[in-house]
Amino acid sequence: MPYVNIRITREGATAEQKARLIKGTTDLLQEVLGKNPHTTFVVIDEVDLENWGVGGLPVEAYRREQGR
Amino acid sequence: MPYVNIRITREGATAEQKARLIKGTTDLLQEVLGKNPHTTFVVIDEVDLENWGVGGLPVEAYRREQGR
Amino acid sequence: MPYVNIRITREGATAEQKARLIKGTTDLLQEVLGKNPHTTFVVIDEVDLENWGVGGLPVEAYRREQGR
Amino acid sequence: MPYVNIRITREGATAEQKARLIKGTTDLLQEVLGKNPHTTFVVIDEVDLENWGVGGLPVEAYRREQGR
Amino acid sequence: MPYVNIRITREGATAEQKARLIKGTTDLLQEVLGKNPHTTFVVIDEVDLENWGVGGLPVEAYRREQGR
Amino acid sequence: MPYVNIRITREGATAEQKARLIKGTTDLLQEVLGKNPHTTFVVIDEVDLENWGVGGLPVEAYRREQGR
Repeated sequence: MPYVNIRITREGATAEQKARLIKGTTDLLQEVLGKNPHTTFVVIDEVDLENWGVGGLPVEAYRREQGR
Repeated sequence: MPYVNIRITREGATAEQKARLIKGTTDLLQEVLGKNPHTTFVVIDEVDLENWGVGGLPVEAYRREQGR
Repeated sequence: MPYVNIRITREGATAEQKARLIKGTTDLLQEVLGKNPHTTFVVIDEVDLENWGVGGLPVEAYRREQGR
Repeated sequence: MPYVNIRITREGATAEQKARLIKGTTDLLQEVLGKNPHTTFVVIDEVDLENWGVGGLPVEAYRREQGR
Repeated sequence: MPYVNIRITREGATAEQKARLIKGTTDLLQEVLGKNPHTTFVVIDEVDLENWGVGGLPVEAYRREQGR
Repeated sequence: MPYVNIRITREGATAEQKARLIKGTTDLLQEVLGKNPHTTFVVIDEVDLENWGVGGLPVEAYRREQGR
């Protein structure tokens, strides 16, 4: 009965993409550990860009600094 | 000083219902482990349906498949 | 299909006490929100005292300071 | 820069199986959302059986009750 | 490669304040443990007041009761 | 009443270092947002190396690959 929490920045992931994340993660746990999909939860959190930091900076500032 | 995180699908839980979850959880920790309510935090996260998966499907698709 | 995470300091909670936390939380979610116990997960994390801080201090130092 | 937390019961997952979970989740996020593997973290938590509840019972009691 | 999750009540923290939390936490992990800022993630969750409980009450009711 | 969760790899952080993380984080939240230290929790999770992945690999394999 795994619980998986996927946290990503909120940048327009579609319902279809999120469904693929749910399906892919659940399949993976079944293949690798034999976990029952019916007791596998996958919860996706989308986090506003100004609330996610890396390199000591909010994500957008970090990307600018990295020239990406 | 417990920290409790309750994650539910976002389906219209009212402020009154959430207050009951907070009260009930805090009382439970006091009764079972003698924890001081003043240092017991309860945080409720409401998760959009398309962000919660079970059985390899987003919740609404799962419920349809289960005939519920 | 709620997911509840209860985090407490590791101070000898027994299996019986943890079973009561699991039962009490699950019942509460059923009573307040009608959640199905069979899709309610409760996960308890026990955290070493030196890894839990409050008031800017590890828990044991904090308790000494508070004269408890 | 996703962060993924996989929580499973502690029942002997091997280092090789955990490496497959890490690889599979990272690949999935790259395929579905184009996320850079070098900024994708996957953290696995293994939880003692008496600390994981479902159906209002610790996992082992629940499995006995379900005849599994 | 630390992951830090800061959860606060949603009460108008500005982007500038959140950037200071990200910077301060990242610097702290570098100073104390030598962690590389480029692999340090800081994620801030802002939680609605009615979803955060302390003392068995939602935060606003608790503050009123405490005369603050 | 913030709750901060710091997750690091388990590589011998001392009690003194963890106390500094607790103090530094609590001070930061007081300075930036005026949060009361007595209702600020900081919880540190130390994660086994084989349970932490980055770049699609467990941490130790990743470091070897990066030549660090």
